[in-house]
Amino acid sequence: MSTAQAGARRPLTILQKSTKKRVTVRLKNEVEYKGKIDSVDQYMNLIMTDAEESRGERTLANYGRVIVRGNNVLFIRLEREL
Amino acid sequence: MSTAQAGARRPLTILQKSTKKRVTVRLKNEVEYKGKIDSVDQYMNLIMTDAEESRGERTLANYGRVIVRGNNVLFIRLEREL
Amino acid sequence: MSTAQAGARRPLTILQKSTKKRVTVRLKNEVEYKGKIDSVDQYMNLIMTDAEESRGERTLANYGRVIVRGNNVLFIRLEREL
Amino acid sequence: MSTAQAGARRPLTILQKSTKKRVTVRLKNEVEYKGKIDSVDQYMNLIMTDAEESRGERTLANYGRVIVRGNNVLFIRLEREL
Amino acid sequence: MSTAQAGARRPLTILQKSTKKRVTVRLKNEVEYKGKIDSVDQYMNLIMTDAEESRGERTLANYGRVIVRGNNVLFIRLEREL
Amino acid sequence: MSTAQAGARRPLTILQKSTKKRVTVRLKNEVEYKGKIDSVDQYMNLIMTDAEESRGERTLANYGRVIVRGNNVLFIRLEREL
Amino acid sequence: MSTAQAGARRPLTILQKSTKKRVTVRLKNEVEYKGKIDSVDQYMNLIMTDAEESRGERTLANYGRVIVRGNNVLFIRLEREL
Repeated sequence: MSTAQAGARRPLTILQKSTKKRVTVRLKNEVEYKGKIDSVDQYMNLIMTDAEESRGERTLANYGRVIVRGNNVLFIRLEREL
Repeated sequence: MSTAQAGARRPLTILQKSTKKRVTVRLKNEVEYKGKIDSVDQYMNLIMTDAEESRGERTLANYGRVIVRGNNVLFIRLEREL
Repeated sequence: MSTAQAGARRPLTILQKSTKKRVTVRLKNEVEYKGKIDSVDQYMNLIMTDAEESRGERTLANYGRVIVRGNNVLFIRLEREL
Repeated sequence: MSTAQAGARRPLTILQKSTKKRVTVRLKNEVEYKGKIDSVDQYMNLIMTDAEESRGERTLANYGRVIVRGNNVLFIRLEREL
Repeated sequence: MSTAQAGARRPLTILQKSTKKRVTVRLKNEVEYKGKIDSVDQYMNLIMTDAEESRGERTLANYGRVIVRGNNVLFIRLEREL
Repeated sequence: MSTAQAGARRPLTILQKSTKKRVTVRLKNEVEYKGKIDSVDQYMNLIMTDAEESRGERTLANYGRVIVRGNNVLFIRLEREL
Repeated sequence: MSTAQAGARRPLTILQKSTKKRVTVRLKNEVEYKGKIDSVDQYMNLIMTDAEESRGERTLANYGRVIVRGNNVLFIRLEREL
Protein backbone atom coordinates (compact mmCIF):
# COMPACT_ATOMS: atom_id res chain seq x y z
CA MET A 1 0.00 0.00 0.00
CA SER A 2 2.92 2.30 0.68
CA THR A 3 3.92 2.08 -2.99
CA ALA A 4 0.43 3.12 -4.01
CA GLN A 5 0.43 6.03 -1.62
CA ALA A 6 3.96 7.13 -2.41
CA GLY A 7 3.02 7.80 -6.02
CA ALA A 8 -0.57 8.66 -5.29
CA ARG A 9 -0.47 12.31 -6.28
CA ARG A 10 2.25 12.26 -8.87
CA PRO A 11 0.22 13.24 -11.95
CA LEU A 12 -1.26 16.16 -10.03
CA THR A 13 2.13 17.12 -8.61
CA ILE A 14 3.59 17.24 -12.09
CA LEU A 15 0.62 19.27 -13.23
CA GLN A 16 1.19 21.73 -10.42
CA LYS A 17 4.79 22.10 -11.47
CA SER A 18 3.66 23.06 -14.95
CA THR A 19 2.06 26.33 -13.88
CA LYS A 20 3.19 29.24 -16.02
CA LYS A 21 3.74 26.86 -18.93
CA ARG A 22 1.56 26.53 -21.98
CA VAL A 23 -0.75 23.53 -22.10
CA THR A 24 -3.76 22.33 -24.06
CA VAL A 25 -6.75 21.25 -22.01
CA ARG A 26 -9.38 19.19 -23.80
CA LEU A 27 -12.78 18.87 -22.15
CA LYS A 28 -15.24 16.01 -22.51
CA ASN A 29 -17.37 18.15 -24.82
CA GLU A 30 -14.42 18.20 -27.30
CA VAL A 31 -13.66 21.89 -26.75
CA GLU A 32 -9.99 22.77 -26.17
CA TYR A 33 -8.35 25.55 -24.21
CA LYS A 34 -4.76 26.48 -25.08
CA GLY A 35 -3.10 28.74 -22.57
CA LYS A 36 -1.00 28.98 -19.44
CA ILE A 37 -1.93 27.20 -16.22
CA ASP A 38 -2.01 29.69 -13.40
CA SER A 39 -3.06 27.32 -10.64
CA VAL A 40 -4.56 23.88 -10.17
CA ASP A 41 -6.03 21.92 -7.28
CA GLN A 42 -6.52 18.25 -6.47
CA TYR A 43 -9.80 18.05 -8.43
CA MET A 44 -7.99 19.34 -11.54
CA ASN A 45 -9.87 22.62 -11.25
CA LEU A 46 -7.64 24.93 -13.29
CA ILE A 47 -7.11 28.63 -13.68
CA MET A 48 -5.84 29.38 -17.16
CA THR A 49 -4.65 32.71 -18.52
CA ASP A 50 -4.57 33.93 -22.12
CA ALA A 51 -6.62 30.95 -23.15
CA GLU A 52 -7.80 30.31 -26.68
CA GLU A 53 -10.97 28.25 -26.93
CA SER A 54 -11.31 26.07 -30.01
CA ARG A 55 -13.20 23.10 -31.38
CA GLY A 56 -11.43 21.12 -34.05
CA GLU A 57 -9.73 23.68 -36.35
CA ARG A 58 -12.03 26.53 -35.35
CA THR A 59 -11.13 29.22 -32.79
CA LEU A 60 -14.20 30.11 -30.73
CA ALA A 61 -13.03 32.76 -28.26
CA ASN A 62 -10.15 34.16 -26.23
CA TYR A 63 -10.24 34.43 -22.47
CA GLY A 64 -7.98 36.53 -20.28
CA ARG A 65 -8.59 34.38 -17.26
CA VAL A 66 -10.83 31.37 -16.92
CA ILE A 67 -11.52 28.78 -14.23
CA VAL A 68 -12.20 25.34 -15.71
CA ARG A 69 -14.01 22.88 -13.44
CA GLY A 70 -11.86 19.78 -13.15
CA ASN A 71 -14.52 17.14 -13.62
CA ASN A 72 -14.99 18.25 -17.23
CA VAL A 73 -11.35 17.59 -18.15
CA LEU A 74 -10.56 14.77 -20.57
CA PHE A 75 -6.81 15.33 -20.82
CA ILE A 76 -4.13 17.99 -20.53
CA ARG A 77 -1.30 18.06 -23.01
CA LEU A 78 1.96 19.26 -21.54
CA GLU A 79 4.83 20.66 -23.51
CA ARG A 80 7.64 18.17 -23.91
CA GLU A 81 10.26 20.54 -22.46
CA LEU A 82 8.48 20.47 -19.12
CA MET B 1 2.47 15.90 -1.04
CA SER B 2 2.88 19.18 0.78
CA THR B 3 3.18 20.96 -2.58
CA ALA B 4 -0.09 19.43 -3.68
CA GLN B 5 -1.83 20.45 -0.49
CA ALA B 6 -0.34 23.93 -0.39
CA GLY B 7 -1.95 24.83 -3.70
CA ALA B 8 -4.92 22.53 -3.27
CA ARG B 9 -7.63 25.17 -3.03
CA ARG B 10 -6.10 27.93 -5.09
CA PRO B 11 -8.61 28.07 -7.96
CA LEU B 12 -11.46 28.23 -5.47
CA THR B 13 -9.65 30.80 -3.34
CA ILE B 14 -9.19 33.02 -6.37
CA LEU B 15 -12.83 32.51 -7.24
CA GLN B 16 -13.85 33.57 -3.76
CA LYS B 17 -11.79 36.72 -4.11
CA SER B 18 -13.71 37.60 -7.24
CA THR B 19 -17.02 38.17 -5.45
CA LYS B 20 -18.62 41.48 -6.42
CA LYS B 21 -16.89 41.30 -9.79
CA ARG B 22 -18.54 40.48 -13.07
CA VAL B 23 -17.98 37.01 -14.46
CA THR B 24 -19.44 34.74 -17.10
CA VAL B 25 -20.44 31.27 -15.96
CA ARG B 26 -20.98 28.67 -18.65
CA LEU B 27 -22.87 25.52 -17.70
CA LYS B 28 -22.54 22.08 -19.27
CA ASN B 29 -25.84 22.63 -21.11
CA GLU B 30 -24.17 25.56 -22.99
CA VAL B 31 -26.24 28.23 -21.23
CA GLU B 32 -24.29 31.21 -19.88
CA TYR B 33 -24.90 33.50 -16.93
CA LYS B 34 -23.25 36.93 -16.94
CA GLY B 35 -23.39 38.74 -13.64
CA LYS B 36 -21.72 39.38 -10.31
CA ILE B 37 -20.65 36.59 -7.97
CA ASP B 38 -22.15 37.20 -4.57
CA SER B 39 -20.80 34.11 -2.86
CA VAL B 40 -19.30 30.74 -3.70
CA ASP B 41 -18.51 27.56 -1.80
CA GLN B 42 -16.11 24.66 -2.24
CA TYR B 43 -18.46 22.80 -4.62
CA MET B 44 -18.54 25.89 -6.89
CA ASN B 45 -22.15 26.49 -5.87
CA LEU B 46 -22.57 30.18 -6.75
CA ILE B 47 -24.92 32.99 -5.91
CA MET B 48 -25.03 35.47 -8.76
CA THR B 49 -26.79 38.81 -8.83
CA ASP B 50 -28.07 40.79 -11.82
CA ALA B 51 -27.46 37.78 -14.00
CA GLU B 52 -28.27 37.65 -17.70
CA GLU B 53 -28.99 34.17 -19.03
CA SER B 54 -28.05 33.54 -22.65
CA ARG B 55 -27.39 30.75 -25.13
CA GLY B 56 -25.12 31.64 -28.01
CA GLU B 57 -26.08 35.17 -29.11
CA ARG B 58 -29.57 34.99 -27.64
CA THR B 59 -30.56 36.49 -24.27
CA LEU B 60 -33.02 34.21 -22.50
CA ALA B 61 -33.82 35.93 -19.19
CA ASN B 62 -32.59 38.22 -16.43
CA TYR B 63 -32.37 37.14 -12.83
CA GLY B 64 -32.03 39.38 -9.80
CA ARG B 65 -30.52 36.64 -7.72
CA VAL B 66 -29.84 33.06 -8.65
CA ILE B 67 -28.09 30.08 -7.03
CA VAL B 68 -26.27 27.94 -9.57
CA ARG B 69 -25.45 24.39 -8.45
CA GLY B 70 -21.71 23.90 -8.83
CA ASN B 71 -21.70 20.49 -10.46
CA ASN B 72 -23.28 21.99 -13.59
CA VAL B 73 -20.44 24.48 -14.13
CA LEU B 74 -18.20 24.06 -17.16
CA PHE B 75 -16.06 27.16 -16.69
CA ILE B 76 -16.10 30.64 -15.19
CA ARG B 77 -14.55 33.48 -17.09
CA LEU B 78 -13.00 36.10 -14.86
CA GLU B 79 -12.27 39.65 -15.86
CA ARG B 80 -8.61 40.23 -16.57
CA GLU B 81 -8.32 43.11 -14.10
CA LEU B 82 -9.15 40.72 -11.26
CA MET C 1 -7.59 27.83 3.45
CA SER C 2 -9.41 29.64 6.24
CA THR C 3 -10.94 32.03 3.69
CA ALA C 4 -12.22 29.08 1.69
CA GLN C 5 -13.73 27.46 4.74
CA ALA C 6 -15.20 30.65 6.15
CA GLY C 7 -17.39 31.15 3.10
CA ALA C 8 -17.71 27.47 2.34
CA ARG C 9 -21.43 27.10 2.96
CA ARG C 10 -22.62 30.56 2.10
CA PRO C 11 -24.80 29.78 -0.92
CA LEU C 12 -26.54 27.05 1.06
CA THR C 13 -26.88 29.28 4.11
CA ILE C 14 -28.55 31.94 2.00
CA LEU C 15 -30.79 29.30 0.51
CA GLN C 16 -31.79 28.14 3.96
CA LYS C 17 -32.70 31.69 4.90
CA SER C 18 -35.06 31.85 1.95
CA THR C 19 -37.49 29.28 3.31
CA LYS C 20 -41.08 30.49 3.19
CA LYS C 21 -40.21 32.68 0.21
CA ARG C 22 -41.18 32.02 -3.37
CA VAL C 23 -38.48 30.68 -5.66
CA THR C 24 -38.17 29.06 -9.06
CA VAL C 25 -36.22 25.81 -9.19
CA ARG C 26 -35.05 24.64 -12.60
CA LEU C 27 -33.96 21.04 -12.95
CA LYS C 28 -31.47 19.61 -15.44
CA ASN C 29 -34.35 18.18 -17.47
CA GLU C 30 -35.55 21.80 -18.11
CA VAL C 31 -38.66 21.42 -15.93
CA GLU C 32 -39.30 24.25 -13.46
CA TYR C 33 -41.00 24.33 -10.07
CA LYS C 34 -42.32 27.65 -8.79
CA GLY C 35 -43.31 27.64 -5.16
CA LYS C 36 -42.21 28.18 -1.57
CA ILE C 37 -39.18 26.48 -0.08
CA ASP C 38 -40.19 24.72 3.08
CA SER C 39 -36.83 23.23 3.94
CA VAL C 40 -33.49 22.46 2.34
CA ASP C 41 -30.41 20.44 3.28
CA GLN C 42 -26.75 20.49 2.33
CA TYR C 43 -27.32 18.40 -0.83
CA MET C 44 -29.89 20.97 -2.04
CA ASN C 45 -32.66 18.46 -1.41
CA LEU C 46 -35.69 20.72 -1.18
CA ILE C 47 -39.23 20.53 0.13
CA MET C 48 -41.44 22.90 -1.81
CA THR C 49 -45.07 23.74 -1.09
CA ASP C 50 -47.74 25.00 -3.50
CA ALA C 51 -45.44 24.24 -6.38
CA GLU C 52 -46.38 24.74 -10.03
CA GLU C 53 -44.53 22.47 -12.44
CA SER C 54 -43.91 23.89 -15.92
CA ARG C 55 -41.77 23.38 -19.00
CA GLY C 56 -41.23 26.49 -21.10
CA GLU C 57 -44.58 28.33 -21.19
CA ARG C 58 -46.64 25.27 -20.38
CA THR C 59 -47.96 24.43 -16.88
CA LEU C 60 -47.77 20.69 -16.28
CA ALA C 61 -49.11 20.16 -12.76
CA ASN C 62 -49.56 21.59 -9.29
CA TYR C 63 -48.18 19.95 -6.19
CA GLY C 64 -49.18 20.64 -2.60
CA ARG C 65 -45.91 19.36 -1.27
CA VAL C 66 -42.98 17.92 -3.16
CA ILE C 67 -39.44 16.81 -2.27
CA VAL C 68 -36.97 17.56 -5.06
CA ARG C 69 -33.72 15.58 -4.97
CA GLY C 70 -30.86 18.08 -4.93
CA ASN C 71 -28.61 16.48 -7.51
CA ASN C 72 -31.17 17.25 -10.22
CA VAL C 73 -31.10 21.01 -9.56
CA LEU C 74 -29.63 23.30 -12.21
CA PHE C 75 -30.36 26.60 -10.51
CA ILE C 76 -32.70 28.27 -8.03
CA ARG C 77 -33.93 31.77 -8.71
CA LEU C 78 -34.46 33.81 -5.58
CA GLU C 79 -36.66 36.85 -5.32
CA ARG C 80 -34.67 40.06 -5.28
CA GLU C 81 -36.25 41.27 -2.03
CA LEU C 82 -34.73 38.29 -0.22
CA MET D 1 -22.37 26.66 9.95
CA SER D 2 -24.59 25.62 12.84
CA THR D 3 -27.64 26.90 10.95
CA ALA D 4 -26.69 24.80 7.97
CA GLN D 5 -26.21 21.72 10.09
CA ALA D 6 -29.32 22.25 12.17
CA GLY D 7 -31.56 21.99 9.12
CA ALA D 8 -29.26 19.69 7.22
CA ARG D 9 -31.45 16.60 7.17
CA ARG D 10 -34.87 18.17 7.27
CA PRO D 11 -36.19 17.08 3.85
CA LEU D 12 -35.15 13.51 4.63
CA THR D 13 -36.60 13.69 8.12
CA ILE D 14 -39.93 14.80 6.73
CA LEU D 15 -39.75 12.03 4.18
CA GLN D 16 -39.14 9.51 6.94
CA LYS D 17 -42.19 10.76 8.76
CA SER D 18 -44.30 10.12 5.70
CA THR D 19 -43.93 6.34 5.83
CA LYS D 20 -47.27 4.55 5.57
CA LYS D 21 -48.64 7.47 3.56
CA ARG D 22 -49.28 7.49 -0.14
CA VAL D 23 -46.77 9.31 -2.31
CA THR D 24 -45.84 9.58 -5.96
CA VAL D 25 -42.17 9.00 -6.80
CA ARG D 26 -40.98 10.18 -10.20
CA LEU D 27 -37.68 8.82 -11.48
CA LYS D 28 -35.28 10.50 -13.89
CA ASN D 29 -36.47 8.17 -16.66
CA GLU D 30 -39.97 9.75 -16.32
CA VAL D 31 -41.55 6.63 -14.84
CA GLU D 32 -43.70 7.16 -11.74
CA TYR D 33 -44.48 4.92 -8.78
CA LYS D 34 -47.59 5.65 -6.75
CA GLY D 35 -47.80 3.80 -3.47
CA LYS D 36 -46.99 3.81 0.23
CA ILE D 37 -43.51 4.45 1.55
CA ASP D 38 -42.53 1.63 3.84
CA SER D 39 -39.04 2.85 4.69
CA VAL D 40 -36.42 5.27 3.42
CA ASP D 41 -32.75 5.91 4.14
CA GLN D 42 -30.40 8.88 3.79
CA TYR D 43 -29.70 8.15 0.09
CA MET D 44 -33.46 8.28 -0.63
CA ASN D 45 -33.44 4.54 -1.22
CA LEU D 46 -37.12 3.69 -0.74
CA ILE D 47 -39.22 0.64 -0.08
CA MET D 48 -42.70 1.13 -1.49
CA THR D 49 -45.67 -1.16 -1.09
CA ASP D 50 -48.71 -1.56 -3.36
CA ALA D 51 -46.97 0.54 -5.98
CA GLU D 52 -48.44 1.31 -9.37
CA GLU D 53 -45.86 1.97 -12.09
CA SER D 54 -46.89 4.38 -14.82
CA ARG D 55 -45.48 6.57 -17.57
CA GLY D 56 -47.61 9.54 -18.54
CA GLU D 57 -51.25 8.32 -18.53
CA ARG D 58 -50.33 4.68 -18.99
CA THR D 59 -50.18 2.14 -16.16
CA LEU D 60 -47.28 -0.26 -16.70
CA ALA D 61 -47.36 -2.66 -13.75
CA ASN D 62 -48.27 -3.18 -10.11
CA TYR D 63 -45.73 -4.17 -7.50
CA GLY D 64 -46.45 -5.58 -4.06
CA ARG D 65 -43.12 -4.44 -2.71
CA VAL D 66 -40.32 -2.67 -4.51
CA ILE D 67 -36.99 -1.09 -3.50
CA VAL D 68 -36.23 2.01 -5.55
CA ARG D 69 -32.56 3.11 -5.60
CA GLY D 70 -32.41 6.68 -4.39
CA ASN D 71 -30.05 8.10 -6.98
CA ASN D 72 -32.71 7.59 -9.66
CA VAL D 73 -35.27 9.79 -7.87
CA LEU D 74 -36.27 13.10 -9.46
CA PHE D 75 -38.93 14.11 -6.94
CA ILE D 76 -41.41 12.69 -4.45
CA ARG D 77 -44.85 14.21 -4.20
CA LEU D 78 -46.27 14.10 -0.70
CA GLU D 79 -49.91 14.32 0.17
CA ARG D 80 -50.86 17.73 1.50
CA GLU D 81 -52.41 16.33 4.69
CA LEU D 82 -49.01 15.03 5.74
CA MET E 1 -30.83 13.44 13.49
CA SER E 2 -31.30 10.30 15.57
CA THR E 3 -34.55 9.56 13.72
CA ALA E 4 -32.73 9.83 10.42
CA GLN E 5 -29.94 7.57 11.57
CA ALA E 6 -32.21 5.04 13.22
CA GLY E 7 -33.91 4.25 9.92
CA ALA E 8 -30.91 5.06 7.79
CA ARG E 9 -30.18 1.58 6.48
CA ARG E 10 -33.62 0.06 6.55
CA PRO E 11 -34.17 -0.50 2.82
CA LEU E 12 -30.78 -2.23 2.60
CA THR E 13 -31.46 -4.24 5.74
CA ILE E 14 -34.71 -5.49 4.29
CA LEU E 15 -32.92 -6.31 1.07
CA GLN E 16 -30.34 -8.31 2.97
CA LYS E 17 -33.09 -10.28 4.64
CA SER E 18 -34.46 -11.24 1.25
CA THR E 19 -31.46 -13.36 0.28
CA LYS E 20 -32.48 -16.78 -0.99
CA LYS E 21 -35.78 -15.33 -2.19
CA ARG E 22 -36.71 -14.62 -5.77
CA VAL E 23 -36.59 -11.00 -6.89
CA THR E 24 -36.62 -9.02 -10.10
CA VAL E 25 -33.82 -6.50 -10.54
CA ARG E 26 -34.30 -3.85 -13.21
CA LEU E 27 -31.23 -1.94 -14.35
CA LYS E 28 -31.12 1.58 -15.76
CA ASN E 29 -30.62 0.14 -19.25
CA GLU E 30 -34.10 -1.49 -18.96
CA VAL E 31 -32.72 -5.03 -18.74
CA GLU E 32 -34.17 -7.21 -15.97
CA TYR E 33 -32.71 -10.07 -13.99
CA LYS E 34 -35.10 -12.51 -12.30
CA GLY E 35 -33.48 -14.82 -9.81
CA LYS E 36 -32.45 -15.38 -6.20
CA ILE E 37 -30.36 -12.90 -4.26
CA ASP E 38 -27.37 -14.66 -2.83
CA SER E 39 -25.74 -11.66 -1.17
CA VAL E 40 -25.87 -7.89 -1.23
CA ASP E 41 -23.75 -5.07 0.15
CA GLN E 42 -24.33 -1.44 1.08
CA TYR E 43 -23.81 -0.24 -2.52
CA MET E 44 -26.55 -2.62 -3.71
CA ASN E 45 -23.92 -4.77 -5.40
CA LEU E 46 -25.76 -8.08 -5.73
CA ILE E 47 -24.91 -11.69 -6.35
CA MET E 48 -27.81 -13.44 -8.04
CA THR E 49 -28.15 -17.13 -8.77
CA ASP E 50 -30.23 -18.85 -11.47
CA ALA E 51 -30.88 -15.47 -13.04
CA GLU E 52 -32.88 -14.99 -16.21
CA GLU E 53 -31.96 -11.88 -18.18
CA SER E 54 -34.76 -10.26 -20.18
CA ARG E 55 -35.72 -7.02 -21.90
CA GLY E 56 -39.44 -6.39 -22.19
CA GLU E 57 -41.04 -9.75 -23.08
CA ARG E 58 -37.85 -11.23 -24.51
CA THR E 59 -35.56 -13.59 -22.59
CA LEU E 60 -31.93 -12.85 -23.42
CA ALA E 61 -29.88 -15.30 -21.39
CA ASN E 62 -29.64 -17.42 -18.25
CA TYR E 63 -26.86 -17.05 -15.73
CA GLY E 64 -25.89 -19.52 -13.04
CA ARG E 65 -24.24 -16.84 -10.93
CA VAL E 66 -23.86 -13.16 -11.68
CA ILE E 67 -22.58 -10.11 -9.78
CA VAL E 68 -24.56 -6.99 -10.65
CA ARG E 69 -22.86 -3.67 -9.84
CA GLY E 70 -25.18 -1.71 -7.59
CA ASN E 71 -24.93 1.67 -9.25
CA ASN E 72 -26.72 0.29 -12.30
CA VAL E 73 -29.82 -0.73 -10.33
CA LEU E 74 -33.08 1.12 -10.95
CA PHE E 75 -35.30 -0.95 -8.65
CA ILE E 76 -35.66 -4.39 -7.09
CA ARG E 77 -39.05 -5.99 -6.90
CA LEU E 78 -39.50 -8.17 -3.84
CA GLU E 79 -42.03 -10.93 -3.47
CA ARG E 80 -44.96 -9.89 -1.32
CA GLU E 81 -44.62 -12.86 1.03
CA LEU E 82 -41.23 -11.54 2.15
CA MET F 1 -26.73 -1.90 11.51
CA SER F 2 -24.50 -4.83 12.44
CA THR F 3 -26.40 -7.05 10.00
CA ALA F 4 -25.80 -4.55 7.24
CA GLN F 5 -22.13 -4.31 8.04
CA ALA F 6 -21.61 -8.03 8.52
CA GLY F 7 -22.59 -8.76 4.93
CA ALA F 8 -21.41 -5.44 3.58
CA ARG F 9 -18.57 -6.69 1.39
CA ARG F 10 -19.82 -10.12 0.52
CA PRO F 11 -20.26 -9.69 -3.24
CA LEU F 12 -16.75 -8.28 -3.49
CA THR F 13 -15.34 -10.99 -1.23
CA ILE F 14 -16.85 -13.65 -3.45
CA LEU F 15 -15.46 -11.87 -6.48
CA GLN F 16 -12.00 -11.85 -4.93
CA LYS F 17 -12.26 -15.58 -4.35
CA SER F 18 -12.93 -16.09 -8.03
CA THR F 19 -9.49 -14.98 -9.17
CA LYS F 20 -7.89 -17.45 -11.56
CA LYS F 21 -11.35 -18.53 -12.72
CA ARG F 22 -12.97 -17.65 -16.01
CA VAL F 23 -15.61 -14.96 -15.94
CA THR F 24 -17.49 -12.75 -18.36
CA VAL F 25 -17.44 -9.03 -17.60
CA ARG F 26 -20.02 -6.89 -19.38
CA LEU F 27 -19.46 -3.14 -19.43
CA LYS F 28 -22.11 -0.42 -19.66
CA ASN F 29 -21.18 0.11 -23.32
CA GLU F 30 -22.35 -3.50 -24.04
CA VAL F 31 -18.82 -4.78 -24.72
CA GLU F 32 -17.88 -8.04 -22.98
CA TYR F 33 -14.57 -9.40 -21.79
CA LYS F 34 -14.23 -13.15 -21.29
CA GLY F 35 -11.13 -14.21 -19.42
CA LYS F 36 -9.55 -14.93 -16.07
CA ILE F 37 -9.66 -12.49 -13.18
CA ASP F 38 -6.16 -11.88 -11.94
CA SER F 39 -7.00 -9.38 -9.23
CA VAL F 40 -9.81 -7.09 -8.14
CA ASP F 41 -10.21 -4.24 -5.67
CA GLN F 42 -13.11 -2.70 -3.79
CA TYR F 43 -14.08 -0.45 -6.72
CA MET F 44 -14.39 -3.53 -8.95
CA ASN F 45 -11.28 -2.46 -10.84
CA LEU F 46 -10.19 -5.74 -12.43
CA ILE F 47 -7.09 -7.19 -13.99
CA MET F 48 -8.03 -9.82 -16.53
CA THR F 49 -5.71 -12.14 -18.41
CA ASP F 50 -6.24 -13.87 -21.76
CA ALA F 51 -9.31 -11.75 -22.30
CA GLU F 52 -11.46 -11.89 -25.42
CA GLU F 53 -13.31 -8.67 -26.20
CA SER F 54 -16.65 -9.04 -27.97
CA ARG F 55 -19.85 -7.19 -28.74
CA GLY F 56 -22.88 -9.38 -29.35
CA GLU F 57 -21.69 -12.34 -31.46
CA ARG F 58 -18.62 -10.53 -32.79
CA THR F 59 -15.10 -10.95 -31.38
CA LEU F 60 -13.28 -7.62 -31.42
CA ALA F 61 -9.84 -8.33 -29.97
CA ASN F 62 -7.76 -10.44 -27.63
CA TYR F 63 -5.80 -9.01 -24.73
CA GLY F 64 -3.00 -10.68 -22.82
CA ARG F 65 -3.53 -8.50 -19.81
CA VAL F 66 -6.03 -5.70 -19.32
CA ILE F 67 -7.09 -3.47 -16.42
CA VAL F 68 -10.80 -2.66 -16.54
CA ARG F 69 -11.92 0.37 -14.53
CA GLY F 70 -14.63 -0.77 -12.11
CA ASN F 71 -17.11 2.05 -12.62
CA ASN F 72 -17.73 0.83 -16.18
CA VAL F 73 -18.84 -2.64 -15.07
CA LEU F 74 -22.48 -3.64 -15.56
CA PHE F 75 -22.20 -7.22 -14.34
CA ILE F 76 -19.77 -10.10 -13.96
CA ARG F 77 -20.90 -13.60 -14.76
CA LEU F 78 -19.24 -16.24 -12.62
CA GLU F 79 -18.94 -19.87 -13.49
CA ARG F 80 -21.44 -21.97 -11.59
CA GLU F 81 -18.76 -24.31 -10.19
CA LEU F 82 -17.27 -21.40 -8.28
CA MET G 1 -12.91 -7.70 5.65
CA SER G 2 -9.16 -8.25 5.89
CA THR G 3 -9.24 -10.28 2.66
CA ALA G 4 -11.00 -7.45 0.88
CA GLN G 5 -8.53 -4.91 2.17
CA ALA G 6 -5.46 -7.06 1.58
CA GLY G 7 -6.14 -7.13 -2.15
CA ALA G 8 -7.86 -3.78 -2.25
CA ARG G 9 -5.30 -1.90 -4.31
CA ARG G 10 -3.83 -4.68 -6.36
CA PRO G 11 -4.94 -3.57 -9.82
CA LEU G 12 -3.60 -0.08 -9.13
CA THR G 13 -0.39 -1.48 -7.64
CA ILE G 14 0.20 -3.53 -10.76
CA LEU G 15 -0.54 -0.49 -12.86
CA GLN G 16 2.01 1.51 -10.92
CA LYS G 17 4.59 -1.18 -11.56
CA SER G 18 4.02 -0.84 -15.27
CA THR G 19 5.42 2.68 -15.52
CA LYS G 20 7.96 3.04 -18.30
CA LYS G 21 6.20 0.25 -20.20
CA ARG G 22 4.05 0.67 -23.25
CA VAL G 23 0.31 0.43 -22.73
CA THR G 24 -2.88 1.22 -24.60
CA VAL G 25 -5.41 3.34 -22.74
CA ARG G 26 -8.94 3.37 -24.11
CA LEU G 27 -11.26 6.12 -22.92
CA LYS G 28 -15.05 6.00 -22.67
CA ASN G 29 -15.29 8.14 -25.81
CA GLU G 30 -13.59 5.28 -27.77
CA VAL G 31 -10.35 7.22 -28.31
CA GLU G 32 -7.15 5.31 -27.55
CA TYR G 33 -3.74 6.47 -26.37
CA LYS G 34 -0.75 4.21 -27.02
CA GLY G 35 2.38 5.19 -25.15
CA LYS G 36 4.42 4.81 -22.00
CA ILE G 37 2.98 5.35 -18.53
CA ASP G 38 5.11 7.85 -16.68
CA SER G 39 3.08 7.97 -13.49
CA VAL G 40 -0.33 7.05 -12.16
CA ASP G 41 -2.32 7.79 -9.01
CA GLN G 42 -5.17 6.10 -7.15
CA TYR G 43 -7.83 7.71 -9.36
CA MET G 44 -6.12 6.25 -12.46
CA ASN G 45 -5.01 9.73 -13.46
CA LEU G 46 -2.14 8.95 -15.82
CA ILE G 47 0.81 10.76 -17.29
CA MET G 48 1.73 9.23 -20.63
CA THR G 49 4.73 10.05 -22.79
CA ASP G 50 5.14 9.64 -26.56
CA ALA G 51 1.45 8.92 -26.83
CA GLU G 52 -0.30 8.28 -30.12
CA GLU G 53 -3.99 9.19 -30.11
CA SER G 54 -6.24 7.12 -32.37
CA ARG G 55 -9.86 6.22 -32.97
CA GLY G 56 -10.44 2.88 -34.64
CA GLU G 57 -7.77 2.55 -37.37
CA ARG G 58 -7.14 6.29 -37.65
CA THR G 59 -4.25 8.11 -35.95
CA LEU G 60 -5.42 11.50 -34.70
CA ALA G 61 -2.37 13.08 -33.07
CA ASN G 62 0.88 12.52 -31.22
CA TYR G 63 1.57 13.92 -27.78
CA GLY G 64 4.93 14.27 -26.09
CA ARG G 65 3.40 14.31 -22.66
CA VAL G 66 -0.25 14.12 -21.69
CA ILE G 67 -2.19 13.84 -18.43
CA VAL G 68 -5.32 11.72 -18.83
CA ARG G 69 -7.99 12.19 -16.15
CA GLY G 70 -8.70 8.81 -14.62
CA ASN G 71 -12.47 8.92 -14.57
CA ASN G 72 -12.51 8.84 -18.38
CA VAL G 73 -10.63 5.53 -18.57
CA LEU G 74 -12.46 2.46 -19.85
CA PHE G 75 -9.53 0.05 -19.76
CA ILE G 76 -5.75 -0.13 -19.96
CA ARG G 77 -4.11 -2.87 -21.95
CA LEU G 78 -0.80 -4.01 -20.52
CA GLU G 79 1.89 -5.80 -22.42
CA ARG G 80 1.96 -9.49 -21.65
CA GLU G 81 5.65 -9.46 -20.66
CA LEU G 82 4.81 -7.19 -17.74
